Amino acid sequence: MKKILNITIIGLGHIGGSLASSLKNTHGRKVSITGIDNSPSVIRQALKSGFFSEVSTLGKSKTIDESNVIFVSVSIRSIPLIFSELIKINFKHNIIITDVGSVKEEIFNSAAKILPKKFEFVGGHPIAGTEKTGFKNLVSGLFENKPVFISGIRAKEESVRLIKSLWRSLGCLVYSIPPSEHDKIFGHLSHLPHVLAFGLKNIANKKLTSREILKYGGTSYKDYSRISESSEALWSEIFLSNRKNLIKGIKEFRVYLDKLESLLESNSKEKTEKHLKS
Amino acid sequence: MKKILNITIIGLGHIGGSLASSLKNTHGRKVSITGIDNSPSVIRQALKSGFFSEVSTLGKSKTIDESNVIFVSVSIRSIPLIFSELIKINFKHNIIITDVGSVKEEIFNSAAKILPKKFEFVGGHPIAGTEKTGFKNLVSGLFENKPVFISGIRAKEESVRLIKSLWRSLGCLVYSIPPSEHDKIFGHLSHLPHVLAFGLKNIANKKLTSREILKYGGTSYKDYSRISESSEALWSEIFLSNRKNLIKGIKEFRVYLDKLESLLESNSKEKTEKHLKS
Repeated sequence: MKKILNITIIGLGHIGGSLASSLKNTHGRKVSITGIDNSPSVIRQALKSGFFSEVSTLGKSKTIDESNVIFVSVSIRSIPLIFSELIKINFKHNIIITDVGSVKEEIFNSAAKILPKKFEFVGGHPIAGTEKTGFKNLVSGLFENKPVFISGIRAKEESVRLIKSLWRSLGCLVYSIPPSEHDKIFGHLSHLPHVLAFGLKNIANKKLTSREILKYGGTSYKDYSRISESSEALWSEIFLSNRKNLIKGIKEFRVYLDKLESLLESNSKEKTEKHLKS
Repeated sequence: MKKILNITIIGLGHIGGSLASSLKNTHGRKVSITGIDNSPSVIRQALKSGFFSEVSTLGKSKTIDESNVIFVSVSIRSIPLIFSELIKINFKHNIIITDVGSVKEEIFNSAAKILPKKFEFVGGHPIAGTEKTGFKNLVSGLFENKPVFISGIRAKEESVRLIKSLWRSLGCLVYSIPPSEHDKIFGHLSHLPHVLAFGLKNIANKKLTSREILKYGGTSYKDYSRISESSEALWSEIFLSNRKNLIKGIKEFRVYLDKLESLLESNSKEKTEKHLKS
């Protein structure tokens, strides 16, 4: 790492804010962080935090053109818009753009399409989100011992190494995976679980009073409701961005439910147990 | 409570074992506990535990006929068989039978049908199960601050009070609820969540390698896999016993999935978000 690395974080939400805090706590004056956000109240909070050398909107930043690395940490649908804004900036140095989005194929395709060759791109996905949102809920050390996936690369080897070393410096376990593989796997291990949790919440809210849910919800329901407290705005974008894999997952899930329903109708203990185990 | 209360626990699994431990730790010599199980190895473990005055199979017990209260803590499908065995015993005192089953309507119907009037029945359901099973995994204090539902009663007021006071003495919050209401609520808040967790596990296991699941499974998948580690044998019985409500829940869930799938196909962010929130 150079003497001072100029890092810009665009989008100071739960992940962007935690990233700023973690980078500053780890590297101190060896990094200079520019924070970018649209919200005046988030900008005010970020200014007070002391993590940033400048906090501003994207259009008004005076230091973003000195960036070496830009973390795009906005919602998935906004990422291409950010790319389109970034290419208007006259960067003073070689610039590496990376992101923290939960879906990788669509983002990589946008990057390849929108960003000119001189913008290097290294896709990233830290598995560190919780049901919390917002800068005010940032967690220092959020990334410690968390996996981060480097997925979707159009960059020099040394640039990829720099991004990996930044994540490793925060305690992450770094893995590399092609975007299509990433999205298939997370469709099953993260996006489908969220689909199920939102569905359970919807149905419980329709069929039961909130008093009943509060009074009777045991351990299993509590695990789900933690997940379904996640932001619907955020997750609807993730679902849509990975809709190809997610629709497959939903179809598979329906086959499982159909089979279970017919076994319950037939009241067969052995077959029901076998189906659950299969 | 009398000077010495003779309690029998039939089925020394995770719940039965934890109940024995909790009762003995709380009441010491004021309770005398007879433990009943089919498994020679469980009987050996239970004898060593020191919680019981006798541990035996149901047919061979020498002290069960002195019981004041019997907790039936076996799998749901075995409960009617236990009732049929119990009515052959010449009990010396007034006898109260209670249970810990996760479904209440079917159990209450069995009790009303099988047990003669002189056997009092007080249905019960402590919300304290975990993914663990077996006497070896018993937890002392498992019931502290846990809700317990008294549901399905054919007993004198003072007998209901005794069962409630036993649960309260272990730190439980005691609620009363009709069996049909109980099963509708838990169909949504416990049984359907388990259906979903087993389904997710099945699909992930089919589509991904166990190495991938271990490596990539984040927080949300971990919550599910805790639930789906529960015993399929146990849960298939719970599902079948509450199949009327569960089939309704599955149908509702399918409507939710169908709608989500069509919104994903149409790539509508606003409608998808609204559906998740609805």
